[in-house]
Amino acid sequence: MMTPTSRAIPSVREVDVDVLREQYLAVRALSLDLVVPLSDGDATVQSMPDASPAKWHLAHTTWFFETFILRDHVPGHRPYDEGWAYLFNSYYEAEGARHARPQRGLITRPGLREVIDYRRRVDEAMLAAMPLIEERCPDLLALGLNHEQQHQELLLTDIKHLFFQNPLGPAVWPDEPSTHDNPHGPELTWHEGPAGLAEIGYSGDSFSFDCEQPSHQHFLSPYALASRPVTNSEWFDFISDHGYATATLWLSDGWAWVQRENITTPLYWRRHDRGWEQFALSGWRPIDPAAPVTHISLYEADAFATWAGKRLPTEQEWEAVARDHDPMGGIQLDRAGPVQPRSVPRNEGLSSLFGNIWEWTGSAYRPYPGFRTAPGAVGEYNGKFMSGQFVLKGGSCATPRGHVRASYRNFFYPHQRWQFTGLRLAKDL
Amino acid sequence: MMTPTSRAIPSVREVDVDVLREQYLAVRALSLDLVVPLSDGDATVQSMPDASPAKWHLAHTTWFFETFILRDHVPGHRPYDEGWAYLFNSYYEAEGARHARPQRGLITRPGLREVIDYRRRVDEAMLAAMPLIEERCPDLLALGLNHEQQHQELLLTDIKHLFFQNPLGPAVWPDEPSTHDNPHGPELTWHEGPAGLAEIGYSGDSFSFDCEQPSHQHFLSPYALASRPVTNSEWFDFISDHGYATATLWLSDGWAWVQRENITTPLYWRRHDRGWEQFALSGWRPIDPAAPVTHISLYEADAFATWAGKRLPTEQEWEAVARDHDPMGGIQLDRAGPVQPRSVPRNEGLSSLFGNIWEWTGSAYRPYPGFRTAPGAVGEYNGKFMSGQFVLKGGSCATPRGHVRASYRNFFYPHQRWQFTGLRLAKDL
Amino acid sequence: MMTPTSRAIPSVREVDVDVLREQYLAVRALSLDLVVPLSDGDATVQSMPDASPAKWHLAHTTWFFETFILRDHVPGHRPYDEGWAYLFNSYYEAEGARHARPQRGLITRPGLREVIDYRRRVDEAMLAAMPLIEERCPDLLALGLNHEQQHQELLLTDIKHLFFQNPLGPAVWPDEPSTHDNPHGPELTWHEGPAGLAEIGYSGDSFSFDCEQPSHQHFLSPYALASRPVTNSEWFDFISDHGYATATLWLSDGWAWVQRENITTPLYWRRHDRGWEQFALSGWRPIDPAAPVTHISLYEADAFATWAGKRLPTEQEWEAVARDHDPMGGIQLDRAGPVQPRSVPRNEGLSSLFGNIWEWTGSAYRPYPGFRTAPGAVGEYNGKFMSGQFVLKGGSCATPRGHVRASYRNFFYPHQRWQFTGLRLAKDL
Amino acid sequence: MMTPTSRAIPSVREVDVDVLREQYLAVRALSLDLVVPLSDGDATVQSMPDASPAKWHLAHTTWFFETFILRDHVPGHRPYDEGWAYLFNSYYEAEGARHARPQRGLITRPGLREVIDYRRRVDEAMLAAMPLIEERCPDLLALGLNHEQQHQELLLTDIKHLFFQNPLGPAVWPDEPSTHDNPHGPELTWHEGPAGLAEIGYSGDSFSFDCEQPSHQHFLSPYALASRPVTNSEWFDFISDHGYATATLWLSDGWAWVQRENITTPLYWRRHDRGWEQFALSGWRPIDPAAPVTHISLYEADAFATWAGKRLPTEQEWEAVARDHDPMGGIQLDRAGPVQPRSVPRNEGLSSLFGNIWEWTGSAYRPYPGFRTAPGAVGEYNGKFMSGQFVLKGGSCATPRGHVRASYRNFFYPHQRWQFTGLRLAKDL
Repeated sequence: MMTPTSRAIPSVREVDVDVLREQYLAVRALSLDLVVPLSDGDATVQSMPDASPAKWHLAHTTWFFETFILRDHVPGHRPYDEGWAYLFNSYYEAEGARHARPQRGLITRPGLREVIDYRRRVDEAMLAAMPLIEERCPDLLALGLNHEQQHQELLLTDIKHLFFQNPLGPAVWPDEPSTHDNPHGPELTWHEGPAGLAEIGYSGDSFSFDCEQPSHQHFLSPYALASRPVTNSEWFDFISDHGYATATLWLSDGWAWVQRENITTPLYWRRHDRGWEQFALSGWRPIDPAAPVTHISLYEADAFATWAGKRLPTEQEWEAVARDHDPMGGIQLDRAGPVQPRSVPRNEGLSSLFGNIWEWTGSAYRPYPGFRTAPGAVGEYNGKFMSGQFVLKGGSCATPRGHVRASYRNFFYPHQRWQFTGLRLAKDL
Repeated sequence: MMTPTSRAIPSVREVDVDVLREQYLAVRALSLDLVVPLSDGDATVQSMPDASPAKWHLAHTTWFFETFILRDHVPGHRPYDEGWAYLFNSYYEAEGARHARPQRGLITRPGLREVIDYRRRVDEAMLAAMPLIEERCPDLLALGLNHEQQHQELLLTDIKHLFFQNPLGPAVWPDEPSTHDNPHGPELTWHEGPAGLAEIGYSGDSFSFDCEQPSHQHFLSPYALASRPVTNSEWFDFISDHGYATATLWLSDGWAWVQRENITTPLYWRRHDRGWEQFALSGWRPIDPAAPVTHISLYEADAFATWAGKRLPTEQEWEAVARDHDPMGGIQLDRAGPVQPRSVPRNEGLSSLFGNIWEWTGSAYRPYPGFRTAPGAVGEYNGKFMSGQFVLKGGSCATPRGHVRASYRNFFYPHQRWQFTGLRLAKDL
Repeated sequence: MMTPTSRAIPSVREVDVDVLREQYLAVRALSLDLVVPLSDGDATVQSMPDASPAKWHLAHTTWFFETFILRDHVPGHRPYDEGWAYLFNSYYEAEGARHARPQRGLITRPGLREVIDYRRRVDEAMLAAMPLIEERCPDLLALGLNHEQQHQELLLTDIKHLFFQNPLGPAVWPDEPSTHDNPHGPELTWHEGPAGLAEIGYSGDSFSFDCEQPSHQHFLSPYALASRPVTNSEWFDFISDHGYATATLWLSDGWAWVQRENITTPLYWRRHDRGWEQFALSGWRPIDPAAPVTHISLYEADAFATWAGKRLPTEQEWEAVARDHDPMGGIQLDRAGPVQPRSVPRNEGLSSLFGNIWEWTGSAYRPYPGFRTAPGAVGEYNGKFMSGQFVLKGGSCATPRGHVRASYRNFFYPHQRWQFTGLRLAKDL
Repeated sequence: MMTPTSRAIPSVREVDVDVLREQYLAVRALSLDLVVPLSDGDATVQSMPDASPAKWHLAHTTWFFETFILRDHVPGHRPYDEGWAYLFNSYYEAEGARHARPQRGLITRPGLREVIDYRRRVDEAMLAAMPLIEERCPDLLALGLNHEQQHQELLLTDIKHLFFQNPLGPAVWPDEPSTHDNPHGPELTWHEGPAGLAEIGYSGDSFSFDCEQPSHQHFLSPYALASRPVTNSEWFDFISDHGYATATLWLSDGWAWVQRENITTPLYWRRHDRGWEQFALSGWRPIDPAAPVTHISLYEADAFATWAGKRLPTEQEWEAVARDHDPMGGIQLDRAGPVQPRSVPRNEGLSSLFGNIWEWTGSAYRPYPGFRTAPGAVGEYNGKFMSGQFVLKGGSCATPRGHVRASYRNFFYPHQRWQFTGLRLAKDL
């Protein structure tokens, strides 16, 4: 069964109730499709504090709708289970005490079947209440759907991390080997970005997150972006040139991390008798030299750029260029199945800006001038995470198509790399 | 279905093949009965490094038979799955690399059903090979069965610990409330033990572990043992008298542990609106003041004894007394169902020496004079654990009936308390 | 003895050799003055990994001159002691292996007297070589002097932290109580900053650090700065209003830090029978409500601003305003003696921009557009620290007068607070 | 200056006041002699939580006399400084709060000179009060002197550990190279110990610690002890035979320690261009193959014994043999100067039972039958440490001569090895 989410979630102001129902069903169905291959145990275990169980993702996204829409805006709604709010609140302090994040994987009950039943019950209530929702809180519906799309990507990367812990190397979905003409990827060219004052941030009528606002001016010095992301082939060169062992290439925090964690390759790489392999949702497979490198930290991205005599782009440089590209294009998530960055064909201009891999920028994740959080619990959505993290742009092969846009700001800590993270080089002109 | 293991596993020298098969089936069936109420997720998750997933217990005990009997002694045996030995070896260095203990809970595949199938296949091979086993390695069969019985107890205490993590407090089995005449338990009396030279250690013809041997002489000064274990009622007195807050009652390591872990009650206790409750395999239930206190560390046991002006018995004192009691009596594990220490009726002499709760002794777990480890991998069974741990005696409500005996030496670290541990006081005469 | 460093270190291009010698002597003399009250033990111990022993500061700053000037540029220089380079290199990877930072306090030999002798010997060589230095590497001399000034401030804050560990609360220097008219500090007013395109970064002829360059344009939206820093009196209000216990005021990382470290006040505060006190280089003293709050983390500064309905300024907003103020004014370090932020008199405009306390900004410490590191080991001076830290502006009471300027970028991790850190509020217009 | 403490501290019942004064002065003088080569910084720094600063040892031993004798038994005594009791109490819970052990090295004031002055003042008061002390609390005086002797040994091993942290490898005292005939040490022979019932524990009239009592009977199976401790030469064989890399030789806790700490040699060994060296109080020096191996953990001692096909003696086996040897003989501490285990000449029977190195036994440190702690704070002296540690026998080159006896029980955790620890093999007969 195929459930493409092939359109961006529209601003609810533009649409009628039937379209809302259709959009809701499409997003919700994809989540369920993603867990079809999972056992109750697969969906229950948490492989590290940064990750969450698949079951938790399914329940938490449902709790979000039940709490912020059904409870707060639909008269007469009775909660499915009083105790579950404690289990499935993620980080909303205003919603009270909650289960400690690192212990999400200790909750074996409710099981996967019960959580799916919970989803069904909330879906029924949501669909029944849709006219009311359109009238009273359409923005919360759009937020809830985008929220669920974010968790779809996390669900995929968390399951990948879990299966990687298993010495037997199980696969979620089978996959075909990649084929392409140029084993080193398309030739790299440079493309000048628009210098001077740029308009940054979201200013349209559709959905966007609070952290993309307000739209504001930012001054850009002359710069250029690489035509494509850095490839595995180029990463092999970095390794061969002792990149991981050369302290002077690294940020100080990054070097401490490399030493402490004994990092010598991207996450999920191993040197096997058969050659270099990487772990994917389809199990262990040969590393495709032409594909973009992925599962690297900001520290690795920065060290590579230094090694290459270049630098990371800022988020504003990236956005100013991406504004003219189609955010629906590229390798993004359309349906349940293996997701993996892939080599992109040579084209005339910049390729792979959207999809394939999230591109680390050199910008710390901080509020835009004039940023305001929303009132109430949903005001905790983004603002409180604005320290210590870096911005990533463009979406990945695991991002539901339609979810991302030029102004979209993803963010992770500089050491984290279990997401589909990569980089594109930039330089001053 | 009821699968009592109501006889001690006999020395194989005395029995014929049919009896061996019957004994094998009874032990193996009990393990499966214990997991009937568990979901795949319940059986997969590991709640702490000290514990193992239920699924792992089922698989590891099977691996033990497959490795040390079928592989080593039955010509033509083909292993069920080559990769599984890595996953299900516990600590046998001689058997090569193995999966790290704290990460046993990250293995979601094979799932519970596959592990049960693995058990079935190994059982078929074992039953078919039983004549050969009786001839070639009957001692390994007895070891394997006793080994599985040990894991049955661990499986119960590990599941209890896992379910305790869940704020919803699920129960494995329902239970009835306890009833008894005296809410404080039977009156405590003192019973003099046999002073002078005592014969310590196992010297019979049935099965015993290597650490119970050789039998040897030990000199005992005059002493007495309490007629019954310390009760919850007495433990409330200790708490009320600020036992957990009085440094001078504690061993130095124990006091550091109390402070670091903020310990104020036995494990699994909570103060609820309804009064004091404890978590059991039947969920949260009122604490029975007349029942033996359980889930305490050696540190707590020692501090209580100091507070009471008494001391813990040595393992030799305990054994010299228990030698005249029936090890098949008392509250022990007969079948799958709720297990919980219970109040014992007043009797003339010492009660509850066997079953109910493991009794901490003041003896460090060290080799007996003349101790020798067995050759090969099974030589790692006990000897290498002889540092840092203390001896416990007598078995508990979760010990399969027939498993324990007067010379039996259980051992845990002094801070551990997720087993059914308690204490009986002793004093010098 | 008084050794004011009351002029900014000039660009060496403007000055002759005698002026260089005079400047060198003044800076070097102040370092020695600061340690006059210290015993050998005081100067040897390291109170936490973030801090360094006073002796180490004295030796490391000397090593810097000896290595990057005498060794690299003065023919025939013989190192004072070959083994010492290993001990007194701070973080220059290009200079080879070095003693681990957290273990600097384990080096009891060489002692304080030997290190002072080392300083004397290097000073003699430096003074003798000054004509050559002026000719060959005047920029390195300026860098070395500014480097030593930075360590003078660190030496003071590190000694303060060390003495704070001592339950006896010793003082380095005696102090007088503060006196002022208004116990709440001057009234707070708001001052609009220059909006639109601003010139940011250093572009003059005197010394500046690489991270202040290149000068570039930055677009500023309309904003205002508070006339003075937040006071202790206002901080008491924040505490009284449960600021430290209100999760929604805090950045997520900050709230985790508050909980983990059990933070309830700024560093160095205690509630005494006599009232609130703070630890200073003059020992325990009453908290002056009118003085700027200090020893707070970025997390605390940000939470306070959120509580106040305001925000932190960006580094560019701060710099655009400070450009018109005298960086030599305010409460800065002129000589050895007690240093402590003090209440500032009401004036017409903005007060205390320079000196008193470092002001946290909301800007992550990242490279300016077009930033380049210097070639060689000194290229490690700033660039590699550009992740995870925030920019502070303006200098403090412990900053040697003449060291700071409007473009100066200090930086610390958001949890660090043993420096003289405080905040000034900002708001959008 | 030479201050031998060449007699055991007599039971005060036998001696007059002049003898007490002489004994007191001798012990106290040795402590001061030991710190003559130390700077204020040397005496202040703490190199690890297990160790204490030299200055702290000097002050704590003085606090012991001041508190338990002068304060408690000498009317009119005024404490030297009220605040110091907090700093210099070690672990006596009954004496109230105290400075955290791992932070002893952060106390730079009082300095070494002030502490020495404190000693002088307390000594004056002690000497003046000696008639009263003899009458009222002679046992406390003996305890205080033996306590100080224990700290003399700790002071030496702590300073050794501190100087080892310094890459420059400073020496406390110079030393001569060792010379001997046989580079492998004397040939090893076996000596049968007395089997059957043995009298264990102290029963004489002189001083002994509470943990050596009461004297009691213990049954010994036939056994033999090696004629001398294991030598460095033999330890080289263990290393060459991959002893540190062979899991099956080790206790389980020991193997985890070896892996976690990456242990490959005894403490203080290094492989230098010049060959194997060890760090001593005289600095780095070649390892003498004929000298007893030292600075090993119980885990290493046990693994070596397993490798050699032997075992460690029990404390009772050791004591039963040592009872007939002179505890004043062997290499023990007579005066300040380099201390280091040395090769012992071949003799007819057992050599080096007393002095040279503490010999690990296989006995956990637990109370003797009938053990009672003393009333009051000094009751915390030994009893509360009776979990998790192992008994060592015989004293070392750093033990003040006269301090040790056959019944003496030293104790350390099985991983600790900064004391002069070694081993002697035993075997069953």
